[in-house]
Formats: sequence, structure tokens, C-alpha cells
Amino acid sequence: FVDFTLKICNFFKKAWKIGVDDPRKFAHGLRVGVALCVVSLFYYMRPLYNGVGGNAIWAVMTVVVVFEYTVGATLYKSLNRICATCLAGFLAIGVHWVASQSGTKFEPFILGASVFLLASAATFSRFIPVVKARFDYGVTIFILTFSLVSVSGYRVEKLLDLAHQRLATIIIGTALCMVTAMVVYPIWAGEELHFLIIRNMEKVSDSLDGCVADYFKDDEANPNNDEACSKNLEAYKSALNSKGSEDAMANFARWEPAHGLFTFNHPWKQYLKVSAALRNCAYCIEALNSCLYSENKSPDFVKIHLGDSCSSVSSHSCEIIKELAQTIKTMTRSSQIDMSVMKLNDSVQLLHENLKSLSTSLIQEEVPQSKTNENAHKESVLTVSLMDVIPLVSFASLLIEIAGRVEGLVEA
Amino acid sequence: FVDFTLKICNFFKKAWKIGVDDPRKFAHGLRVGVALCVVSLFYYMRPLYNGVGGNAIWAVMTVVVVFEYTVGATLYKSLNRICATCLAGFLAIGVHWVASQSGTKFEPFILGASVFLLASAATFSRFIPVVKARFDYGVTIFILTFSLVSVSGYRVEKLLDLAHQRLATIIIGTALCMVTAMVVYPIWAGEELHFLIIRNMEKVSDSLDGCVADYFKDDEANPNNDEACSKNLEAYKSALNSKGSEDAMANFARWEPAHGLFTFNHPWKQYLKVSAALRNCAYCIEALNSCLYSENKSPDFVKIHLGDSCSSVSSHSCEIIKELAQTIKTMTRSSQIDMSVMKLNDSVQLLHENLKSLSTSLIQEEVPQSKTNENAHKESVLTVSLMDVIPLVSFASLLIEIAGRVEGLVEA
Repeated sequence: FVDFTLKICNFFKKAWKIGVDDPRKFAHGLRVGVALCVVSLFYYMRPLYNGVGGNAIWAVMTVVVVFEYTVGATLYKSLNRICATCLAGFLAIGVHWVASQSGTKFEPFILGASVFLLASAATFSRFIPVVKARFDYGVTIFILTFSLVSVSGYRVEKLLDLAHQRLATIIIGTALCMVTAMVVYPIWAGEELHFLIIRNMEKVSDSLDGCVADYFKDDEANPNNDEACSKNLEAYKSALNSKGSEDAMANFARWEPAHGLFTFNHPWKQYLKVSAALRNCAYCIEALNSCLYSENKSPDFVKIHLGDSCSSVSSHSCEIIKELAQTIKTMTRSSQIDMSVMKLNDSVQLLHENLKSLSTSLIQEEVPQSKTNENAHKESVLTVSLMDVIPLVSFASLLIEIAGRVEGLVEA
Repeated sequence: FVDFTLKICNFFKKAWKIGVDDPRKFAHGLRVGVALCVVSLFYYMRPLYNGVGGNAIWAVMTVVVVFEYTVGATLYKSLNRICATCLAGFLAIGVHWVASQSGTKFEPFILGASVFLLASAATFSRFIPVVKARFDYGVTIFILTFSLVSVSGYRVEKLLDLAHQRLATIIIGTALCMVTAMVVYPIWAGEELHFLIIRNMEKVSDSLDGCVADYFKDDEANPNNDEACSKNLEAYKSALNSKGSEDAMANFARWEPAHGLFTFNHPWKQYLKVSAALRNCAYCIEALNSCLYSENKSPDFVKIHLGDSCSSVSSHSCEIIKELAQTIKTMTRSSQIDMSVMKLNDSVQLLHENLKSLSTSLIQEEVPQSKTNENAHKESVLTVSLMDVIPLVSFASLLIEIAGRVEGLVEA
């Protein structure tokens, strides 16, 4: 029993930590509570209750189902729900009218067949990528409303009244959600995406820096420093694994109105392209990292020979990535980027030269042949991997220049 | 207008193609239709209707909301829905009883406060990873049911009757969904995961093979072949991007009962580990691939020197990956794997030797120094990247041996 209590305590501690780390999550819980209470007023207060009747329950339901963490997700669900309800309602009333004209005998069959056909078609349509991305929730609500109205139409007399009231309550519910989501501590999916990508860029640049520094540093560093280092090195992994959430956020961000620095038609797709380029960089760092932990190490003189040029390449790369992050942050084109790219190219050239001279010097030494060469190739892996990073970085810089231009246009 | 019609035609063509490629998607649409029609019978047939009353609509709703593509997802939603409804119902009735004892004046306040508190807490709990993974839907339903019952309890007299009927209809709906999902063309999330990972393993091994072959082949290959090759090369990307869907499927697979080759407690987590190892391999192939497309090529004599040993390393790696895929497919431990791993190690050793001899021969030639060395390091990148692949492959093999053993235990 003590074990069980301890587990529960731990669970609550963890939960509390999540909330303290990101107080907006607490705020979201409170927002939902407030919205629910406000909507319950329709039930508690007589004048409001008389307006919409027992269907007030639908407003409560709408709030629970529609209210999401980000504004974009809430808007997506709200708009989908309203549109799908309207469309399905009209269709169902139309089918009901046709069925009622054809006599009591055929009525249930016509209704049943229409439900079967539309539900099958709509369910299948959810597999189409475009529908899946933008209207998945809407299709569910469409099937729901259509079958509810057409099935209950068989027994309920005042179908139009019912539909009208239901639509009114759903609109009340969604409107309340939208307003609450946008006014009380709004959390914009677009903003989240924006900062997520900037954060990832910084992490990737830190890892690149750390990785190269780690490779060339003395082995006698103090262990405390090492731990921080390895944390830095692992940072790029978050860039590797964030594809799913980025896609979802870009999807929701499309539904958001203008807010803060972002206009309505902000080029969210550019963000996805940037993050794809960034992921490519992260793959390269992954490869570099595995060199770092491989068994055979290069001798010190090779390290010293190449250390400076390698570090200059990596530091220039880091600079560019950080500058790009800054560019995205401020959404203005930085004039320094072209300069930095030129500097980077220069240092790559220098590294090339150094490699060539290294090979020459190695051949001149000729002692211990096999070992040094073994290590030289180890070394060169590092540099070539770095060289792999560079086209990707310049690719990313191009992309972001495009993004910057588009943003410039939007702002103008 | 013609443009518009064309677009719609295209849309339908695409949709049709999706269905033809995977007929199970059509089947799923039909299944939902059938389930909805069966549940509508409760409304159309008088004896059934008298049993559950107007609440039959809840059964329809449950079917629409709960029915998902895979059995695991359907079970997850069904069980979550039933449990959450029961729990919230009892809680709400309890709170209602307390509130009704405290007089009419305080009643709405107590009800409102309880809704506010529980809704806030439950919404916040959705941010906790464990809850998010397993009970996300259940929490939504909990909030929904609790607020519905406690809010409508303020006006509706026979609360217990209402709750009882609603629970009955929900159980009818979920039971119908579960039976339909499991009996009519079942699509098991576990099976999907199983085959997805096997397919990914085969793709990665094909890409590795194709990549190395491409590097060492003559440039005068016919273009037709090239296209197939590049398709092969791109195959590993599907392994890179499948993390999200794998996680979701492993999550759903946990809810599934024993089916086909899989028992109830099948070690689904092992699949995730295997796929993580596989993704590591895919990163390496990504790095290899960038070598393939880089500008500076190595001279032919280096290629000839190393070609054989490189191809033997890669073919052994491919063999191992394919054998592991076979192991997972049949869920038996193959005795050949140890042998293959040994062979692989031998060929790696050979490659090492070749590299050393290459460097020696290079030094003996000493003409054209800088150029050959430049290329030698290019070459060595390839081989070292291959060597990077190997620990990963052996890591994967270890993992799958563990998986095989666990499965052997489960089967025994």
C-alpha cells in the first residue's frame, strides 16, 4: 500500500513539474474551466434557458470537444464543426423530405440507405491526404450530424425547430471557445512553430560547435564540463524528431488570423522547408558524432594540423545558422549573411589546402605509415562530413532568403 | 468552369487510386456504413426503441466517434469511453446529491464550482505524457460526461434513469463497434506495425546495397536502370520519417487482444527499439548518399582496389538486415545470424587491411600526390561510413535477438 501511495505522490510531483515548467499549461486548464462555467450559465439562468431549451447541452458538449491548446487547433475544430453541421443538417433535411414524400413504407429504407452511402463515402474520404490534413474533424462531424438528424427525423416531429436550435447552440459554443482561446492567454500555433524552429536551429548550431570542439580538445577536461557538453551534443536530436509536431503546427497555423508579427497568409510552408533543411544538417551531425565516439583516435599532430581550420569552418557554420535564426526571429533580411557565407567558403578552401599539405607532410614522414594513414582517413572523415554540412547550410540559407523575401513582401 | 470540373475529376481519380492501392480502405468505409445502419435499427424498430427511448441517439453517436481504422484504435477509444463515462457518471451523481442536500440557493454554485475544478484538472492532466498516450480520449469523455450530467441534473428530474439509459446505449454502441472492427475485415495495428518495420528494414538494406553499387559502378550504365536505382536509394527515407506513425501504432497495438501470430502481451516496445536502431542506420546511409552526389570523385584505381571489400561489407550488412527482417517475420531465432555477423566482421577486417595497403601503395607511387590523397580521403569516407554502419547493425542484431528471445518466451 505504501508503494502505491508513493507512486501516486510521484505522479503528482511530475504533473506539478510539468505545470511549473510551462505555466501556460495550467492556464489552459483554467481557461477550459472558465469556458465551461460560462456556457453552463445557459442552463442555470432561466431567461437564457428559455431561449435555447434543452439543447443547451449541445453548447456544453461543443465547448468540451472543440477547445484545444492552441488557437489554431481551436479555430480548425470550430470552423470545421460549424460548416460540417450546417452542410450535413441541410442534406439530412433534404433527404428527410424526399423520404417523407415516398410514403411510410419506404421511409426507413431510404433513410437507412442514405446514411449507409454517405457514411461510407465520408469515411473513405478521410484517407485522402488533403481531406485528412484540413477537414478530418469536419468529416466526423458531418457523418455524426447527418446520421443524427436523419435517424431522429424518423421519430421527432419538429425537425426544423430541432435543427435550428442545435445549430444555434453549436454556434454559441464555438463562438465562446474561439473568443476565449483568442483573448485569454492566447497560445498561437504559428508562434509556437516559429520559436520551435528557432530553438532547433540554435540547438543544431550548438551541437555542431560542441562536437567539433570536443573532437579537438584535450582529454583531460574536467568531468563536469563533459556532462554539459554531452547535453549540448544531444541537442540536435530534438531537431531530428520534431517533424511530426511541426507538420501539425503548420497545419493549425494556417487557420489562425493575423496576430503579433504574423499576418494571415504567413508563409508557413517555408518553415517546413527550413526545418527539412535543418534536419538534413542534423543527419550530418549525427554522422560526425559517431566519429567522435568511434574507437580509433587520430594522433595529436594531425589534430593540431587541422584543428584550426576545422574549428573555423564549424564556427563559421554555426555563425550562419545562428544568424539565420536571428533572421527568422526578426523577419528581416540580414545583410551579413552573404558576408558570412563568403567567409565560410574561404575557410572551407583553407581546410582543403590544409588537407593537401597534411597528406604531403604525411608522405614525407613515412613513419609509422599504416597507422598515420589510418588516422588521417579518420581525420578526413571529420572534415568531409563538415564539407557535407556546408552545401546544406548554404541550401538552408537560400531557403531562408526566400522566406525572408516572402515575409518582406507580406509586411510591405 | 472547365478548370473547376477538371480539378474535381482529378480529385476523384486520386481518391479512387488510393482505394485501389489499398482495398482495405474501401472496406473500412463500408464497415462504418454497416455499423451505423445496424445501430439505426434501434431507432427504426419499435420494440428496440421502446427499450432505450430517445437516448438511442447516443448509440449512433458512439459508433460515429469510436469507429477507427485499426482494431487497436477502436478498442482504445471504446474502452476509454466506457470507463470514463461510468466514472464521470458516478462522480456527477455524487456531486449532484451533495448539492441537492445543501438547498436550492447553493445548488448551482456547488455544481458550477465542481465542473470548473474537475474540468481544469482533467484538461491539465492531458499534458502528462502517460495520460496523453493512453487516456487522452478518456479524459475528454470524462469532462464531457461529468459536465453534461451535472449541468443537466439541475433541470432534469429522473437523473438516475437518464444516466442508466445513456450508459446502456453507449455500451451497445461500443460493443457493436468492437465486434464489427474485430470480425469484419479486421485491420490490426500490431500487424501493420509488424509489416511496416519489416518493409522498412528491407528498404534500408536495398538502399545500402544500391548506394554502394552505385558508387562503384561504371558511369556508362543505361538511364532506365538509373531511375530504378535512384528510387531504391530514396527508399531509406521512408524509414527516417515513419517514427510518428510507429509510435501511434505501438500505442494502439497494446490494446489489442491476441490475434494471428501475436499474443496479448506481445513486446511492442521492442519494435520501437528496433526501428530506432534502423533509423540510426538510415542516418548513416544518408551520409553515404551525400558522398555519392558530391563533386569530387575518386580515380578508378582506388575504386578497383577497394571496390571488392567495400561491396562485400555492404552485401554482408544487407544480408544481415534481411535476415533480421526474416527473423521478425517468422518470430523465430535464426541460427544463421551469428554466422553472418562473423562473416561481416571478417569482411570489415579485410577492408581495413585493404585500406592500409592502399595507403602504402599510394605512398610508394607518390605521383600525383595531392590529388590521389584528396581522393583517398574521399574513398575512406565511404569506408568509414560503412564502418559506422556496422556497429549499428550489430546493435540492431542484438536488439532483435532480445526481441526473438522474448517472443520465444511468450510463445512457449
